[in-house]
Amino acid sequence: MQLGIIGLGRMGGNIARRLMRAGHSTVVHDLNDEAIKVLVGDGALGANTLEALVEQLEAPRAVWVMLPAGEPTENTINALAKLLSPGDAIIDGGNTFYKDDVRRAAKLSKDGLHYLDVGTSGGVWGLERGYCMMIGGEEEVFKRLEPLFKALAPGVGDIPRTRGRTGEYDRAEHGYIHAGPPGAGHYVKMVHNGIEYGLMQAYAEGFDLLRSKGGNELPEDQRFKLNVAEIAEVWRRGSVVTSWLLDLTADALVADPQLSEFSGSVSDSGEGRWTIDAAVEQAVPVPVLSSALFARFRSRQQQGTYGDKILSAMRLGFGGHVEKKGE
Amino acid sequence: MQLGIIGLGRMGGNIARRLMRAGHSTVVHDLNDEAIKVLVGDGALGANTLEALVEQLEAPRAVWVMLPAGEPTENTINALAKLLSPGDAIIDGGNTFYKDDVRRAAKLSKDGLHYLDVGTSGGVWGLERGYCMMIGGEEEVFKRLEPLFKALAPGVGDIPRTRGRTGEYDRAEHGYIHAGPPGAGHYVKMVHNGIEYGLMQAYAEGFDLLRSKGGNELPEDQRFKLNVAEIAEVWRRGSVVTSWLLDLTADALVADPQLSEFSGSVSDSGEGRWTIDAAVEQAVPVPVLSSALFARFRSRQQQGTYGDKILSAMRLGFGGHVEKKGE
Amino acid sequence: MQLGIIGLGRMGGNIARRLMRAGHSTVVHDLNDEAIKVLVGDGALGANTLEALVEQLEAPRAVWVMLPAGEPTENTINALAKLLSPGDAIIDGGNTFYKDDVRRAAKLSKDGLHYLDVGTSGGVWGLERGYCMMIGGEEEVFKRLEPLFKALAPGVGDIPRTRGRTGEYDRAEHGYIHAGPPGAGHYVKMVHNGIEYGLMQAYAEGFDLLRSKGGNELPEDQRFKLNVAEIAEVWRRGSVVTSWLLDLTADALVADPQLSEFSGSVSDSGEGRWTIDAAVEQAVPVPVLSSALFARFRSRQQQGTYGDKILSAMRLGFGGHVEKKGE
Amino acid sequence: MQLGIIGLGRMGGNIARRLMRAGHSTVVHDLNDEAIKVLVGDGALGANTLEALVEQLEAPRAVWVMLPAGEPTENTINALAKLLSPGDAIIDGGNTFYKDDVRRAAKLSKDGLHYLDVGTSGGVWGLERGYCMMIGGEEEVFKRLEPLFKALAPGVGDIPRTRGRTGEYDRAEHGYIHAGPPGAGHYVKMVHNGIEYGLMQAYAEGFDLLRSKGGNELPEDQRFKLNVAEIAEVWRRGSVVTSWLLDLTADALVADPQLSEFSGSVSDSGEGRWTIDAAVEQAVPVPVLSSALFARFRSRQQQGTYGDKILSAMRLGFGGHVEKKGE
Repeated sequence: MQLGIIGLGRMGGNIARRLMRAGHSTVVHDLNDEAIKVLVGDGALGANTLEALVEQLEAPRAVWVMLPAGEPTENTINALAKLLSPGDAIIDGGNTFYKDDVRRAAKLSKDGLHYLDVGTSGGVWGLERGYCMMIGGEEEVFKRLEPLFKALAPGVGDIPRTRGRTGEYDRAEHGYIHAGPPGAGHYVKMVHNGIEYGLMQAYAEGFDLLRSKGGNELPEDQRFKLNVAEIAEVWRRGSVVTSWLLDLTADALVADPQLSEFSGSVSDSGEGRWTIDAAVEQAVPVPVLSSALFARFRSRQQQGTYGDKILSAMRLGFGGHVEKKGE
Repeated sequence: MQLGIIGLGRMGGNIARRLMRAGHSTVVHDLNDEAIKVLVGDGALGANTLEALVEQLEAPRAVWVMLPAGEPTENTINALAKLLSPGDAIIDGGNTFYKDDVRRAAKLSKDGLHYLDVGTSGGVWGLERGYCMMIGGEEEVFKRLEPLFKALAPGVGDIPRTRGRTGEYDRAEHGYIHAGPPGAGHYVKMVHNGIEYGLMQAYAEGFDLLRSKGGNELPEDQRFKLNVAEIAEVWRRGSVVTSWLLDLTADALVADPQLSEFSGSVSDSGEGRWTIDAAVEQAVPVPVLSSALFARFRSRQQQGTYGDKILSAMRLGFGGHVEKKGE
Repeated sequence: MQLGIIGLGRMGGNIARRLMRAGHSTVVHDLNDEAIKVLVGDGALGANTLEALVEQLEAPRAVWVMLPAGEPTENTINALAKLLSPGDAIIDGGNTFYKDDVRRAAKLSKDGLHYLDVGTSGGVWGLERGYCMMIGGEEEVFKRLEPLFKALAPGVGDIPRTRGRTGEYDRAEHGYIHAGPPGAGHYVKMVHNGIEYGLMQAYAEGFDLLRSKGGNELPEDQRFKLNVAEIAEVWRRGSVVTSWLLDLTADALVADPQLSEFSGSVSDSGEGRWTIDAAVEQAVPVPVLSSALFARFRSRQQQGTYGDKILSAMRLGFGGHVEKKGE
Repeated sequence: MQLGIIGLGRMGGNIARRLMRAGHSTVVHDLNDEAIKVLVGDGALGANTLEALVEQLEAPRAVWVMLPAGEPTENTINALAKLLSPGDAIIDGGNTFYKDDVRRAAKLSKDGLHYLDVGTSGGVWGLERGYCMMIGGEEEVFKRLEPLFKALAPGVGDIPRTRGRTGEYDRAEHGYIHAGPPGAGHYVKMVHNGIEYGLMQAYAEGFDLLRSKGGNELPEDQRFKLNVAEIAEVWRRGSVVTSWLLDLTADALVADPQLSEFSGSVSDSGEGRWTIDAAVEQAVPVPVLSSALFARFRSRQQQGTYGDKILSAMRLGFGGHVEKKGE
């Protein structure tokens, strides 16, 4: 099949490459001409403008937009929509807020255009491992473009089969699903990232406990000096907490168990936040997912929070406790 | 009545004074001779040794130990026990772990000695406002010493009476209770402090939200520059969140709304920690009380936690996100 | 002064009454004619339609809308806006989302209309205690209507003055403030309610700990049977956790320490939720405020959550633990 | 080598089997004669008493105690210690609290006995997958018994090697480590379980969010009916949240996406609780690990908590909100 791709960053470029390796053809565009050239070198057709991209695609066209969520994606889709024809499809592979998908799909459908939202996990490893995809949109359009998704997905591989599954391997086992109507793909991806935050924070707290067992909070004769790199490694072997995130942690701890190169200031992104908003909207208690997000917020306030100073002010008030600077 | 008092810090000294103002007599001891002199100046009998203190008291004696919890209290009580006679009573007014009370009371009773544990709230304000007391121990002994507790307590004052209460004002309305057997006094005080942590953190988070509404996380046209001192003041007037802790916050914010003199590093004490241990033991979910304690732990790690670096290491691993120092 | 009031529920009706007691005059409207009649009996002018209400007010008019937030308030304000003249002011005293205030104020100002948002705390007690008010909107309009706010506010009363405050009592000390531009009033009220949730949950967890100390989770010889009503009462007397919420708890526990009439299912409202959304937007960690909201969400799922069943399913998977129904 | 094993439940029995498959010999004991017979059928020597077990072992002996933590383990070790000779070693493979290990090892060493604590993960899958082991105790004794641990461990298998590791595969890569002095093995296992709780709760909350997106809290036109079994499956394929726990979840959801057979009441065990106690002792904030434990506590109070009723009582007090039974 043929796919137009807009945005040739790490994700977009590798998506093009993985598709071409599977025998599909791509027409690619980026604001950066150099990025286009590189992909053309890999076998893609280049397009310096949206117009040129649309012209080089055969109807019904499919264009994958792989840009930062928010304005870049929104503006590009709006511009693209004016150039496309009824029956064409726009695929948003970025980290879009699922309610934006719902709105956009409704708007585009008035012009006869289709819209698929693709939540993609696998990041920098996707070219090699394949992309895990959760896809929202009309089922018919999804099915039309399914060969592309199948090529991008990891495939069955050598992962042991889930107990109770029999017969032909289905889509999910190949690593992509049709999650539901527009927005459902990004909704599922959002929850995926919410879980990711929680898992990461669980390991982070655990390793803090391993390390602090050797630290100053305890009397010397109660301390254990534990080897965190060894522990991460042994947990990869038959323990209940084996996971890919643990594998990555083990990688990092081999290089430097102190992790001294890191600042301790941790970013967060839209999905982690939207997950909490969704939980609030749907009245679901999510203490772990929210704690994980808040830990990141807190990590960025290395000078102490205003709230902490409020605590000290009260403590001074009722107990004469002094927690002032330089004391 | 007559009371021996050991430990003439802010608390012990003021307890002696408040008792003497009410017509009771005290025999006082401290490692610091100067502290004894000051109290003698206020009308107490001084004792430079435990032996001297015990000698000057008439049987059945009552001795109030007002020392830091842990070893200082433990050692003093052990020494004192050897000097006292069956029927005498030791009162621990410090911040003792309630399980230590249980153990101690059992041990002392073998020698015919009585033990009362008194959880005391009111801190530096007690001399003036009176002490709110939660008392554990044998009921008979409690009743024998009740005149002392009544004198120390705030009394009925001008606080509006609780709806549904009628008739004579009871002990609780005077500001002291017999909570239960040995340990019950400190247990109730421990829970009091656990709640205190939670209340404080609730205000801290709220004031953080007030302040951050004017800060950089928001686009300029969505910010409100709020006057936190005014807000604390208005909330004291008929709102649902009125409290003594809010009063203290209002005090502090009049002096400096930035609270710039505070380091942001906040201490915690035994009670806050034991509350969480008790919750774990009793299988009670205490997300608020534990969050409040953890916020204090976190406030003291101003260089970032090891756990936060673990997060960054994973993010680098799966997404190529760089959160290193100096970047 | 003269004020129009729309919505004569408990809040609106008492606002009218408190204003009239202070010598102001009111023109009142409600969908329920009976409610109007009652207020007319108290001295108000009645208006059966919005048109009649507007006609009976002298320009520049001020109309207080006291209706459920969301559609009822929105629709009424839209209808009212068509009847008013430039210079008139609409006051929204309900529990409106502050971003709706911002939007509304901008829209109304195009027609020369003014908009004040009044966050009001004090609930059912306001007629007697006065209303604590946080007000957003243009300063000029606020000042014009200030006599009304002053009459509604609790006033200085006999609350001890905040340390460091001197001279004339200011607005905050009377119990109302001009918090900032449109939306600021409801923003501050929202944070107030967020704090309220946190405070309530801190007490709830503490009382759970008091009660569970006498329960089955502990061996019999480690239990204390604590008198929660007495404890709530004694904490009202000089302790650090004194507050109005504690007073209310003490009221309830006198009536029934078991609280057996309550279902244990607890509602939440917009403000508690919006507080978390604001924290997420402003990157403020609010573990206590969010835990308090989640505890209410959880309280309404008395049959167990799907998430809990996921836990059991995993436990069966890795450990053979059986947590099935009827076992 | 030769190993004595006491306690032939699922874990102890399979440990014996896995050792015998690797060519080691075992002498086994259990209170249940039938359990002994079964193992004898598999090639073990049986011992109906501790004495018989000790007699059949050659010095220096090694005895693995695989019993429920607490009294059963404690009593057995005490009885065994009386029968053993200097130089012999006791291995506690149960879920013992690490501070008990420290105490025991010190006590046994006075009689010249050695003590190893082995934290074991892998549960019911160990016979087949091998046991992941974290071992505390004297290094010399550990080394003497290392052939046993190597035989029990999963071995290198086909797990991709951690980046940065080169040369010979070390112990951790075979699936067992010498974690440190007595207690270190169970400490590391405890933290492992703490992390496990956090990971599980992260998934639980995520799946709750997937399910609730189709539920009544949302207006009908905002719902997505998501296929949770498909989602679990697709996440196993190249996503960031792949893990063994997710594999188990996928297994369960194939069988019944409703999980309707589960009660929703979830147990917890010592390790999860001790993890929180350790965090409190070491001043480490663990919001995720504690939230995970509290969620389980909460799951078992299906009739609502006393704390929730306290909330309702306050709400009735300040706002007239009624949350009583049957209303």
